[in-house]
Parts: sequence; structure tokens; C-alpha cells
Amino acid sequence: MQFYTLKLCGLTRKLPIVALGPKIKIASFNLLGDGELVEKVAKRLEKEIKKFEFDYLVGPEVKVVPLLQVLSQRVNRPRYIVLRKNIMGYMIRPISVRSKPTLVLDGRDAEILRHKRVIIIDDVVSTGRTIRIVKELMEMVGAKVVGVVAVLKQGQEKISMNAPFVFLGKLPIFES
Amino acid sequence: MQFYTLKLCGLTRKLPIVALGPKIKIASFNLLGDGELVEKVAKRLEKEIKKFEFDYLVGPEVKVVPLLQVLSQRVNRPRYIVLRKNIMGYMIRPISVRSKPTLVLDGRDAEILRHKRVIIIDDVVSTGRTIRIVKELMEMVGAKVVGVVAVLKQGQEKISMNAPFVFLGKLPIFES
Repeated sequence: MQFYTLKLCGLTRKLPIVALGPKIKIASFNLLGDGELVEKVAKRLEKEIKKFEFDYLVGPEVKVVPLLQVLSQRVNRPRYIVLRKNIMGYMIRPISVRSKPTLVLDGRDAEILRHKRVIIIDDVVSTGRTIRIVKELMEMVGAKVVGVVAVLKQGQEKISMNAPFVFLGKLPIFES
Repeated sequence: MQFYTLKLCGLTRKLPIVALGPKIKIASFNLLGDGELVEKVAKRLEKEIKKFEFDYLVGPEVKVVPLLQVLSQRVNRPRYIVLRKNIMGYMIRPISVRSKPTLVLDGRDAEILRHKRVIIIDDVVSTGRTIRIVKELMEMVGAKVVGVVAVLKQGQEKISMNAPFVFLGKLPIFES
């Protein structure tokens, strides 16, 4: 197993390098369980987020959930919105995009977000596919995406967001 | 849609009552996105958790993840362990129980947990099935479960845990 050494917010992490296909490898970044890193990242991102005028933080399950929790508290938002990968038992009138992979929003959360300004939070932005799905869902429910904030940007690809895009560090993609 | 009113840690929440089968309904409790409730619950559970001698907090994805993050920070544990429902790309030598539904532990987390004392954290304990799966996994990797701490206990069923079981409140099960 090969590792990539990431330095982020004063901490050092050894990320395993995993194959995504026969000719492409990435360093796998995981916030889940790393409470110390989540706290440090949240402290740094808090400053970035406070530059925006917004109502809610929104993000996809699972790995960014700890960061959403800590960030929301830091910016005094009692609620944040988690998009699920499937329709869950607790949802009322769930809303999802038609494309696959999909993301699902609880209908009650959709009501909360209508005509509101949101910042999308993610851990790693690579092709921007997840962000596009979240944006599509936000448009469906009448929410306005005012910013996209990620921990890391992976690869060199330019991504068109139609919204300010902030990230703290970069991850390489290894191609052979 | 019917709702059940839950009072917990000084907050009031309207939980949707959803059918689990033709003759059974439950009040659906969801910590995801409710940052305010997560903070209050963590503050209360911190006191309970400090009564134990333990090394790590462990819990299943997804709904208890925000609580694991906040609780771990409160009790000064920089890491916590999240059990996933499937093998994920970032895992090295993942370990899972054979039963279905399964839970999966990253092999690196298994190394961290060997010979360590853990507290299992969950949001709602009902039949105790999830706790049994987590305990089985902990036994497989040589960790000792010293306590089970939940936000809510659902239903009247007595559950044998072979470890101290702490919870903050109760949820009814509606049978017809």
C-alpha cells in the first residue's frame, strides 16, 4: 500500500493511494472518525463562510456530516441539511434528481430551503459531479446556491460552478 | 401525517409517525441536520460517558455521526470509529460480520481498537440488533465493549446487553 502525505491546518495525515481505474489512482481522504481534523478544518472554514450572506449549510452524506455539524454550530445555525443517497423512512414527500447517482432531500427540508440562500459543503471536489447534483436539487426546491466550500480540490480540472468556490488544499490525481 | 411530540434536553421536536409494518408504527427520530439537538444531547451524554473508563467511542453510520463527532471532542478523544454499511474505497483490509444487515470496519480502525475499551454510541435502540452486530464486530477485533450509550430507547422490550446500558429518554411503539 502506498500513501500520500497531506498537510492540512497544521495536521499531517497519511492517505492511502487507491486505484479508481486501471490507469488512475487517487489519495483517499476521509474526515469520518477524525474528530481532531474536523475541528481544525471547521475553524479555518468558519472564516471563509462568514464572508458569505447565507441561511443554511447543505451537504451530501456521509463523510462531510461531522464537518456540517461543527461548522453549523460555529456560525450559529441550529439546523443544516444533509442530502441522502436513498429515500429514508423518516422522509415526508422526498425530492430527488432523476440522474444516477441521485441525492434525496426530505420534503420538510425542501420547505425549509425554499427561497433561502445556501452554501454547499463537501469534503473533496474532483469532477464536480456531486456539486452539480446538489445544485440541481437546490434549483428544484427554489433555493439559491451562493457558494461552494470544500476541504480539498482534487486534480487539475477546471470546474465551472457559477458560484464562488473556496477550498483549503489540493490533492493530486496519479495517472499512468 | 401524525406526529409524536418528543421533549428532550429542554428542546421539543415533532417526530413523524411512520408505519414499519401493517400493525406497527413508530415515531421517527432523526439527529441528522438538527445541530442544536446534537449539541444539547452531547452535553448531557458527556456526563454519562465520563463515568466509564474507555478508550474510543464507536457507532454505526449515518444518523449518529454528528453526535459521535461532538461527543468525542467533549471527552477529549481526537478519534472515533464509524462503522459503515458497505465496504468503502478508502478501506484497507475491511472486516465485516457475516450476518445481514452487516456493518464494516476499516482494517486500520481494527488495529486501533485491538485490546481497547469502547463505548458503543447509537441514536435509538429498539430490538438491539444493531448493538449486537457492533458487539460481534468488536469481539472479532479484540476490543472490549464497556458500555452502550443511546439517545433513546424505543419500546418496552427488555434488551440483554452484557454491558451497562444508558439512555436519555424513551420512544413508544404504536401497535394496533
